[in-house]
Amino acid sequence: MALRQPDEPSRRPVMLGIAGDSGAGKTTLTRGLVRALGTSRSTSICLDDYHRYDRAERRRLRYTPLQPACNYMDIIEQHLGLLASGSPVLKPVYDHATGRLTRPEFVVPRDFVMVEGLLSLHTPPSRACFDVSVFIEPPESDRRDWKIRRDTTERGYERTQVLSELTRREDDAEEFIRPQRHESDIVISLGHIEGRDDPVDTPLSATILLRPTIDHPNFAEILDSVPTRAMHVKQVHDGDRGLVEALHVHGYASTEESSLVAKAIWDRLHVREPPPHGLGLLDNGEVNEPLRLAQLILLYHLVGSTGLR
Amino acid sequence: MALRQPDEPSRRPVMLGIAGDSGAGKTTLTRGLVRALGTSRSTSICLDDYHRYDRAERRRLRYTPLQPACNYMDIIEQHLGLLASGSPVLKPVYDHATGRLTRPEFVVPRDFVMVEGLLSLHTPPSRACFDVSVFIEPPESDRRDWKIRRDTTERGYERTQVLSELTRREDDAEEFIRPQRHESDIVISLGHIEGRDDPVDTPLSATILLRPTIDHPNFAEILDSVPTRAMHVKQVHDGDRGLVEALHVHGYASTEESSLVAKAIWDRLHVREPPPHGLGLLDNGEVNEPLRLAQLILLYHLVGSTGLR
Repeated sequence: MALRQPDEPSRRPVMLGIAGDSGAGKTTLTRGLVRALGTSRSTSICLDDYHRYDRAERRRLRYTPLQPACNYMDIIEQHLGLLASGSPVLKPVYDHATGRLTRPEFVVPRDFVMVEGLLSLHTPPSRACFDVSVFIEPPESDRRDWKIRRDTTERGYERTQVLSELTRREDDAEEFIRPQRHESDIVISLGHIEGRDDPVDTPLSATILLRPTIDHPNFAEILDSVPTRAMHVKQVHDGDRGLVEALHVHGYASTEESSLVAKAIWDRLHVREPPPHGLGLLDNGEVNEPLRLAQLILLYHLVGSTGLR
Repeated sequence: MALRQPDEPSRRPVMLGIAGDSGAGKTTLTRGLVRALGTSRSTSICLDDYHRYDRAERRRLRYTPLQPACNYMDIIEQHLGLLASGSPVLKPVYDHATGRLTRPEFVVPRDFVMVEGLLSLHTPPSRACFDVSVFIEPPESDRRDWKIRRDTTERGYERTQVLSELTRREDDAEEFIRPQRHESDIVISLGHIEGRDDPVDTPLSATILLRPTIDHPNFAEILDSVPTRAMHVKQVHDGDRGLVEALHVHGYASTEESSLVAKAIWDRLHVREPPPHGLGLLDNGEVNEPLRLAQLILLYHLVGSTGLR
């Protein structure tokens, strides 16, 4: 939410902070943004790399990676501050496949820096580095399914291990992860609609909460101008913040109508750059229109922020 | 040589920069300083850890570690600046035993931070971080012997490899290492007296060049007040800087006379802290009086600098 002054040097990157629990879809969301912007002008980093302890040490010390004490929070703040001011950092590297900390890597900030992590929005100095901040919050049942699938296929865990880990982490998730929801400009809930008995292959829907901490495109106006039945704007209760606007995109939105909405959003940016391609890609290779629009809204803010520099 | 202002917060550490070629004795010198000050109030780091390439990569790319391009010079400057302002850093780690880059370590600056490296004094931003800077320059024949002994016993090299490496590095030593001699407050030459045919077990002598870039104790006065035949002050030519004072300490200096000189130096600090113990220790376990006095002079400057904060 940090404001940029027009006289700041233009080499400062636009910073996006993405927080959410393990398996929530942070990497999937981020990957699409980097794909759309291109690696020549965007960089993403994952704050899992700032684990203070490796997997064996965490087990011995009974830490979960969700605990701030299990991460170099001060180095995260330091590195985010350096990246936000355009300086490179030597970022630590945590290897999820082996659970070990390994050789660090040199990261040069490009025009856009995407920062995703369990605790990206945990401390005020970190939050101050972001132009746009996002919390991802899928329905808990979806997150569990996704975490089980990923951890058993990519990270060498047994299904029972992941299940007991989910239980073990619950208190920490409540204490450290979920409070970050309140610190974000945008909350994205992508998943199956809760309380319904939809078939398993029903496409994921999204609710995108648009807090007035940053300037959003006027979705009421956009959806008036574009014929769509799969999207609507609603007012939702946002804790003590009162009513806040949310965009709901149903999973059955067609590519055609989502393209029209995407174009209408992008037109409001008044930039020469065409609307980005390659969005909405899920890990299973399918394209999901609600994810596509969520990513497009983030790109609207990222590309829009460059004009403020 | 950076000046401290009296109103700066006292948690800023006093920084010592030590530069010199491979095998010159940087680690031996530094180890004694940390031993004397204690690890609760001193930290040392070695800039070899900032190698950009590991041993195999350097071989392939035909780099020597003496080349700035082979090291993260920008990260060195960044980390020295952070340490100098009292901030911790996540320092990379190069494992000399395996020649590989590995898990970084968290370094918190204590009251005193000793920084030793091939290129510690190479760039102005690095030099600006140091309160006191030292260049170590033993006679080349001693340095070669020491490097061969260490690299074959501790770093897994063959003798012939070390010899060819010494030849391969000569141009880089001349281009990058030796020019740092001119950037230091103190130049320490510890070794066998050149041009003499002393027996191998003759204790090492030292010449300690004391440039007027920092305030040294008055050695002419000290040596007048203490009866010693093993030490003397001389004026030596220091390039275009003209004549500069140097303290020569002969290897046969006795513990008694060097203790008296040490006490006389320390008394000039006017601090409650007693003169430090445990100095002068060589890697072979022997105590060398010239090294002891060289270390004591550095401690004089380090402890003296805390009063300026």
